[in-house]
Parts: sequence; C-alpha cells; structure tokens
Amino acid sequence: MDELLEPLIRGDRRALSRAITLIESTRPDHRERAIALLSALPDRQALRIGLSGTPGVGKSTFIEAFGTMLTERGLRVAVLAVDPSSTRSGGSILGDKTRMETLSRNPAAFIRPTPSNAQLGGVARRTREAIRLCEAAGFDVVLIETVGVGQSETLVAEMSDLFVLLLAPAGGDELQGVKRGIMEMADLILVNKADGVLLPTARRTVADYAGALRLLRKRPQDPDGFPKAVAVSAATGHGLESAWDDMTTLTDWRREHGHFDGNRAAQARHWFMAELRAGLLARLDEADAKARLGRLGDAVAAGEMAPGEAASRMLEDLSRRVD
Amino acid sequence: MDELLEPLIRGDRRALSRAITLIESTRPDHRERAIALLSALPDRQALRIGLSGTPGVGKSTFIEAFGTMLTERGLRVAVLAVDPSSTRSGGSILGDKTRMETLSRNPAAFIRPTPSNAQLGGVARRTREAIRLCEAAGFDVVLIETVGVGQSETLVAEMSDLFVLLLAPAGGDELQGVKRGIMEMADLILVNKADGVLLPTARRTVADYAGALRLLRKRPQDPDGFPKAVAVSAATGHGLESAWDDMTTLTDWRREHGHFDGNRAAQARHWFMAELRAGLLARLDEADAKARLGRLGDAVAAGEMAPGEAASRMLEDLSRRVD
Repeated sequence: MDELLEPLIRGDRRALSRAITLIESTRPDHRERAIALLSALPDRQALRIGLSGTPGVGKSTFIEAFGTMLTERGLRVAVLAVDPSSTRSGGSILGDKTRMETLSRNPAAFIRPTPSNAQLGGVARRTREAIRLCEAAGFDVVLIETVGVGQSETLVAEMSDLFVLLLAPAGGDELQGVKRGIMEMADLILVNKADGVLLPTARRTVADYAGALRLLRKRPQDPDGFPKAVAVSAATGHGLESAWDDMTTLTDWRREHGHFDGNRAAQARHWFMAELRAGLLARLDEADAKARLGRLGDAVAAGEMAPGEAASRMLEDLSRRVD
Repeated sequence: MDELLEPLIRGDRRALSRAITLIESTRPDHRERAIALLSALPDRQALRIGLSGTPGVGKSTFIEAFGTMLTERGLRVAVLAVDPSSTRSGGSILGDKTRMETLSRNPAAFIRPTPSNAQLGGVARRTREAIRLCEAAGFDVVLIETVGVGQSETLVAEMSDLFVLLLAPAGGDELQGVKRGIMEMADLILVNKADGVLLPTARRTVADYAGALRLLRKRPQDPDGFPKAVAVSAATGHGLESAWDDMTTLTDWRREHGHFDGNRAAQARHWFMAELRAGLLARLDEADAKARLGRLGDAVAAGEMAPGEAASRMLEDLSRRVD
C-alpha cells in the first residue's frame, strides 16, 4: 500500500499535496505509482463545481468569500486552478495563494494552482485525478477554477457536476461577449460586484442574462427556474449564501432524478475515450517510432512515397514492434 | 497493373471517374486496390487552386466562366467540390453538374462533386487522392472548390498551391464577416459581380480588402503586391484573364524561389501525419476492439474502474491483439 494513502484518506493536506505532485509527474515510475494510488482510493464524493470567469471579474475575491462561507458552514473546500495560459509562464503557485490569502491559511481549505509545463490535454488528466484525490481526502466541495480561454471552459465543464459562470456588471451590448456555447454549459450565472454604484447595472445585467438563458433550450435534467442568473457581491458577501442554496437545490434535484450519477457516468466514459486516444497517439512519440517517422516523412516530402502509403507502412510497423 | 491505369493516364474521363469512385470506397479490397493504383501513378503536376466562397457569391458562375476561359487557352481543367454540409444530404451530384452546365459538357473539363456519406476527415483524404488522379490524367489545373463552412477552408488550403477567396461586393462593415484566419490563407481575393450597378461597390470593396491585406504580415514566399485583391465579373468575363495572370505570376515566382516545392513537401508531411493519426484511431473501430471498449466503458461508467486505468488496459490489449 502506498505510504501516501493512509494520511491522504485522513485528510492530511501535505499528503494530498504530495499525491497531486505525484500524479503531475511524467516520470514512468511515478506514473505507475500514481495509477496504483488512484486505483486504491476509497469511493468518496465531493460536489465538483466548475467556475469560469474572465480576468477582472473578481474571481479570486469571489472564491475567497464563497470558500470561506462554505468552511464556516463546516464544509471542507478544495480549489484547483485550470489555467492553460499560466502553464507557459511556469505555473502560478505564488499567484494563486496570494490571490486567496485568507482561504489559503484556512485549515479546512486547500488551494492548488495549475500544474506548470503542461499541455491542455495534460492539464485535463491531472486535474481530473487531482479531483479524485481531493474527494478521497474528504473534501466536500471541489472548486475547479478556470479563465475564459479557448477550450478550458469546456474541459472544466466536462469534469464538473455544476458549471458556474462569474460575470461582471455590463451593458447589454457586452452580453454578446459570452459565447453561446459557454452560456449553454452554465447551470448558474453569477453577476458579481452587485454593490455600491454598480448595483443598478448588476441588476440590469442579471435581467439581461436571465432573458438570454430563457431563450436557450431548457435541459431535461434541470428543475424549473434553472439555469438561472443571480446577483452576488464577493466584497459584501451579498447573495453568496443564496447562490450556495441554488447550487444545492439543483444538485439535490439532479441526484433524486438520477441525472447526477448519469452525468458522472457519461463524463467517465468521455474521459476514458479521451485518454485512450491520447495513449494511442503517444505511441508516435516513442523514440524508435520517431526515428522511423522521420525517415518516412522525408520520403513523403521528397515525393518518393504517397502520404497514404507511408501511413500504412508506419501503422504496420507499429503493430510489428509490440510483438 | 490495374486496368484503370492505362486509360487514366491517357486522360480518359470515364476511367478517371471510376478511379475516383474506387478511392471513395471504404471496402477493404477496394481500398487495397486504390492504394496500389495511387502508388503506380506517374509523377505529373497540375496547378492546384483552392477556391472558397460563401453561397450567393456566384461561385458556380465564376467556375463556369473561369474554367471555360482556361479551356479556351488549351488547358484541361478539373473541378473537385469539398462541401462537408452536402454530404449529410447524400451528395450533390445533380447540383454540381447543373450548376456548371457549360463546363460539364466541355471535353477538356471534368467536374466531380463531394463524395456522399463522408466525414470531413474522409472528404480530405479522398479529395487529396482525387487531385493526384486528376494530375495523373493530365489535367493542367485542378480547382478544389469549397463553401465557407467550418474547417473546410483550412482543409482545402492545406491541399492547394494557391488559395483564392471569392467574395461579393459589400459595405465596409461586412468585411468583418471574413475571419482573419481565412484572410491570412488567401493568395488572391476576387471580388465578383464587378459589373452594372454593383461596379462602384465592388471597386470600394476591393480597396477595403486590399487595405485589410496590407495590414496582414507579408509572407516571405510572396513577391511584392501579393496577396492581392482584384475585381472580377463572372457574368461579363471582366478580370478573369487578369486574375489568371496573377495566379501564374505568383506560381512562377514561388517555383523559382523554391517555395512551390517547399509548400508541397510540407503539405505531404502534414497529410502523412494526419493519415497516420487517423489510422491509429481507426483501430478502436475494429469489431473486437469495439466489444472490449464497450465492456471497459461500462465498467468506467459504473465507477468500477478509473478512466485512466481502463485506458491503460485497452492500450495493452490493442498491443497484444496484433501478435
């Protein structure tokens, strides 16, 4: 049994941290140990909440306030960041912890930044595995935070039970800035900064988004009134408890109607296929395959062999190599 | 030697048509015959021109007029359509031929619609192979026509020596409708319908696009003045000869500077890798792989196995199966 397993299950945050570092490693022996550890985890469930918000919307302040509120209710909260852009600059370890200073010192909370030096596909696998580690460590809520960049929102939605969009108060024109596909994934739209001078704008923005959500097809897995748009203020705390109530109402309804488990099952199938495809393609990155690929690629570029014929030969070669 | 080879090389259009039907087939014995036929083709080159234009821009009329003009110059012209949307409705055989009535009756021309019942990836492979068949059959120009839908323009650009964008006269605001990525691929922008009452608008549109092209980074493989925007009228024939002169000027320059062959070599490498990846992933569609996939997928959905573990087992299984 892995030495990390017992402290991890006890909820030890250092063990959790070390386990995540283990699953982030690409070293083959680490990978083997990670797979064994993941297979030995007990079957615990947290509520997985995907949270997306563009820079400037006050996402860190929101997570601070929302996460702290949840811990005051006796819940343990883990925050995982999925920011593919930050991987280029080598991660944002300092960034994430200083952005959420109160929460990072809270013993009932755990914050983990985006793994550094990872591709989007790699971030996806590691984040899913980190979620399972957080669940095994007894966390009740796992917030998976992402910025609105490229495909990261879809990735996060595909590993979450709930997908929450945090938006800033804005004029009607700016509604268009949120892509239809993102809106369709949202279970809850929170319009932040609903305080002070921005309160009237925030209320109008909520009405605008509520209208836009009504135009989208209602999903059969949702009760009346969902997806919904509400106003919150991370600064004053206004609306946070009510937003949490909305999340639990929606989750309870989905559990009762089988949609919660159904969604997790569909997600697990999806990730199985995604890993399988990635694994197959990874064969082309192995050293001897690469050498052969280079030679065939040169022959194709020189016009000595058709692309299709070269591909057939390489595929035969890959089959023979495993004998 | 394949019985189609000799008549194909002689330029027989019925043999060409049958050869394209052969490469479009997914039957394993047909596929084997197709690969052998493709490998036996002589090394002839046509100018491959990718042509994109949204519906309503007068693309068929343009191809009729432009193609006819080329045949009058003694050139043989093949037209291949890549319209992924038409594959859903089961091809557009009647459509393409009635759209280009004069050209379809011209003995120096050959028109082939999008293969029916094909995915975008499948359309790509078949179109590339059809291009090689047209070249072997002695055609001088292969027009690869596509509609501005999804990824089809990128696909077509990746198999063309020149990429031409056919646009309608429009107000400045509508310039925005052409995505920057598409503009960056264009070697030549033709503003059609530069005749009658639309002539002033067409001229203004040309100026607008010329300005937009100047803002894009000049490509090292291009001589001064390219990429360029010019006015044409498929209805009156105005500008068609001059557009062909532009195409040959650009092509000659690229040939002299090695960019023509360099581009074809890069494209061949690209398609080799694309076919290789598709071939690897196709292993998951084989009957016994599918059965095993179904069982593992069920176990993953039921929470009995982690997605990563199931993927590892399936990958091992795929390796063993080829022994």
